[in-house]
Amino acid sequence: MTRLQLNEIESNRAEAPPLPLTVAPYTSSDDYKSPYASTRPLAKCHAHHFSTESRHFTGSAMKKESSPTGQRRIISLGTGRPTSDYYPWESLAFRGVSPVPVKSDFACTLERTVLKQGETYNLSIGLNYSHASGSAHLLRFITEHVELVHNPPYSNWTTFLSSGSTAAMEVVFRVLCNRGDTILTEQYTYPGTLESATMKGIKVQGVEMDADGLLPDALDKVLSSWDTAQSSKPHVLYTVPTGQNPTGCIQPLGRRRAIYEVAEKHDLIIIEDDPYYFLQMPPYHHSNGNSGISGSNGQTTVDETSVEAFHSRCIPSFLSLDTSGRVVRLDSAAKILAPGLRAGWVTASSQIIGKFLAYQEISTSSVSGPSQVMLWHLLDESWGHSGFLSWLMYLSQEYQWRRNVVLDACNLYFPKEIVQWFPPASGMFLWIEMDWRRYPQLAHLNRSPDEIDARILELELQIANKSLEKGVLVTRGSLFSSNNKLNGQLHFRLTFAAASREDLKEGVRLFAEALRECFQL
Amino acid sequence: MTRLQLNEIESNRAEAPPLPLTVAPYTSSDDYKSPYASTRPLAKCHAHHFSTESRHFTGSAMKKESSPTGQRRIISLGTGRPTSDYYPWESLAFRGVSPVPVKSDFACTLERTVLKQGETYNLSIGLNYSHASGSAHLLRFITEHVELVHNPPYSNWTTFLSSGSTAAMEVVFRVLCNRGDTILTEQYTYPGTLESATMKGIKVQGVEMDADGLLPDALDKVLSSWDTAQSSKPHVLYTVPTGQNPTGCIQPLGRRRAIYEVAEKHDLIIIEDDPYYFLQMPPYHHSNGNSGISGSNGQTTVDETSVEAFHSRCIPSFLSLDTSGRVVRLDSAAKILAPGLRAGWVTASSQIIGKFLAYQEISTSSVSGPSQVMLWHLLDESWGHSGFLSWLMYLSQEYQWRRNVVLDACNLYFPKEIVQWFPPASGMFLWIEMDWRRYPQLAHLNRSPDEIDARILELELQIANKSLEKGVLVTRGSLFSSNNKLNGQLHFRLTFAAASREDLKEGVRLFAEALRECFQL
Repeated sequence: MTRLQLNEIESNRAEAPPLPLTVAPYTSSDDYKSPYASTRPLAKCHAHHFSTESRHFTGSAMKKESSPTGQRRIISLGTGRPTSDYYPWESLAFRGVSPVPVKSDFACTLERTVLKQGETYNLSIGLNYSHASGSAHLLRFITEHVELVHNPPYSNWTTFLSSGSTAAMEVVFRVLCNRGDTILTEQYTYPGTLESATMKGIKVQGVEMDADGLLPDALDKVLSSWDTAQSSKPHVLYTVPTGQNPTGCIQPLGRRRAIYEVAEKHDLIIIEDDPYYFLQMPPYHHSNGNSGISGSNGQTTVDETSVEAFHSRCIPSFLSLDTSGRVVRLDSAAKILAPGLRAGWVTASSQIIGKFLAYQEISTSSVSGPSQVMLWHLLDESWGHSGFLSWLMYLSQEYQWRRNVVLDACNLYFPKEIVQWFPPASGMFLWIEMDWRRYPQLAHLNRSPDEIDARILELELQIANKSLEKGVLVTRGSLFSSNNKLNGQLHFRLTFAAASREDLKEGVRLFAEALRECFQL
Repeated sequence: MTRLQLNEIESNRAEAPPLPLTVAPYTSSDDYKSPYASTRPLAKCHAHHFSTESRHFTGSAMKKESSPTGQRRIISLGTGRPTSDYYPWESLAFRGVSPVPVKSDFACTLERTVLKQGETYNLSIGLNYSHASGSAHLLRFITEHVELVHNPPYSNWTTFLSSGSTAAMEVVFRVLCNRGDTILTEQYTYPGTLESATMKGIKVQGVEMDADGLLPDALDKVLSSWDTAQSSKPHVLYTVPTGQNPTGCIQPLGRRRAIYEVAEKHDLIIIEDDPYYFLQMPPYHHSNGNSGISGSNGQTTVDETSVEAFHSRCIPSFLSLDTSGRVVRLDSAAKILAPGLRAGWVTASSQIIGKFLAYQEISTSSVSGPSQVMLWHLLDESWGHSGFLSWLMYLSQEYQWRRNVVLDACNLYFPKEIVQWFPPASGMFLWIEMDWRRYPQLAHLNRSPDEIDARILELELQIANKSLEKGVLVTRGSLFSSNNKLNGQLHFRLTFAAASREDLKEGVRLFAEALRECFQL
């Protein structure tokens, strides 16, 4: 299928109408999609998936009336948007250096003045209200990025800027589920998802996984054998396909296709939570402790050819396979740019995004203006698409190197008679399983599964506390269990994202020491 | 009652434990309240006000476990918070000039490096995750500000940073109300509130007003005569006590006390939505068109004595009168600093704020980091409390001047035979009533109230469109009606916040021209 190429973006922009320059102008990703998008079939109708609550998500009438379109100058005695004369900041400036081939550093100062000739975005716009979809300038870039990378195979997809993936997840559950509904997730999953569902009275059913993630046959079986007399059949699957949290595994393309087929068969909406999409990396090979030498911030080399190769090497997302428009894809700036921005983007069929936007108008309104300004300047004005992809490739190499440091340390320090671990090929997490039967007080325990779980939970807490006492913070596996039970297993999750490079090895050593002491090895 | 004074803040800070410097550290406004707070009685228990949904608002277990307290260095293999080495921005700088006596300009550059000696906040912290309450640095200032200005008369009040008042309002309805509940509001109120309630299946009952706002007797009557057989008795009052939106009126102190008494009698939670609190101004006196001369950005003079006088002249908030801890006070940075920050603060009893925080952990997580950094530097590092109050006084003078310009223009241009208006002593809105009976086609209409409303609605839209055609945007009054009916009245709301000073007068002239044409005068 013909698809948008990097080198077509500039001419697409040149042929498009100019970006709107009014306050909080109406904007939509439809304005920034390539001509290819319109040649594709429409998404299916998904109105039957909407919750009772979201049928009333209609947005703000006043906001709609207060953004007249057209180029004519209008005096506003309409909405209470204070004039930018009363914003106390007069300029905002930022700079940075990035290991990308396109431009190696950037610097920018935005003034809170009337737009000058040629300017399209400044602080008077950036500090005012913004449309719920985002500012036109940033949304254009993000829409192009989504099309370049994921190329959705239907026409009426839409992207908007969310206040981060956690917020977007909270909203998507509200849009799709009623109290008492059940959603499906991986057997082990992100606690925020579990808590977000529980908060709304939504039940969670975990689906079995293997080293390649969620098992399509298990998914099909759960749905085919669902007892609708007990509760209504699940119509939503939540999955983290890349660098799954907490297991670190990545679904290969064949696995994704098979899962999508099951979704088609049972009419599932797929929530693709994919913050680690670009942190894909080659398999781990035991490097005999050499990982300390290669890589490190600013040392990774990236060139344009390798960027294209990197992009084409990444496993296609569910959005890329989504012929029916049943995928709600959540992207996050937190793991690839900075968490404090509280920004991300969501892509789905326009019918579904319409609900998100109506909700955003009545809740957070939009992403923070300073965050949007910083993102726009970095991505669009400084890096461009090629530069952004280079940055993402650089990050994946850095995480690869961090992963190797941690896995080398595991090989070096872990008591292998009780610890098993699963070298990840994506993301920022390492999933560890321990043989609790080797724990002296549990060795010959002959109890019910619930009683065993209770004893494992005590042991888990003991290990976590002992680790903290040694000076290392690890995350207890029980937090990730989709059914709130341990199921006779003892897990921990380690992340290689946060610690300084020097501390990664030391952290694993301390954790191993804590384990040895707890297990009296 | 003894209360916190401006000159005590420095010594309070000096005696308090140092601010935490770890990533997203646990923080609470309790740490920043003065010793006076603890001498007061506790709030009443309000658990019976919580909705079914919010009983499950418990927050994020992983986030709680991932912020160990204490000063010891801990290596984190815990949560997936990317190291600040991977944030592409290396510095953020901003500057501004402000007409305050304390410091007349400010400039700041924050670096993304390890904290230097004496530094407590920089970009590596500002761009990382933050605690749901906010960053310790900003929360300290805001807590002190709330105590200085409002001095809540009970001990366990708590303040946290919200993602703006619209978001906070969405959450407070979720915390307090179930589908089918009814909330009480002013007869005319902010459309966002109406839409936020409707979205959640909450009904709205308007309460009669006069020139001083909501009528306590009417409120009492609605509650005393409530037919609980039809639907459960309202337990939430939403009010905008200052610069009411859309009427612009301000409740005098006596009125506030009387409303609070009714709330005590009927056990109401009062949502005090008060973004215009500081935009209090003296009554309008017709200035014979002189308003164009006095005032304008940067020209207003402010000195320290006048700041204290201004502060003590402001009518006390409901929070200031709240002996039972039944007020949920929403403050917003949008109308007094900049809307694009998407930031505000909420103050209520710790029991109620606990629900907000649990929800925030699972949704927006926190206010945007760049917004927090900008607010902290401006308010705490640059202006200080006295400077912030000076800024607010300056703003109130600016709005006073803008109000006068608009009212002078109304006197000059409006066809007084059909238009009546209500000079506001606060806020940014002017409420206008028109005599639709003077509209030729409606003069002798003898129809049912619903049919009359339908005709007025057509006329309202005709006037709005005619105005837009002339080049001025105004807001239709029907959007503000709490019962979605016109009740035989034709209103418009004008704001004097948005237009440039030169355009205010011209906007009114164009609107008056549109009116004359529509009414064929």
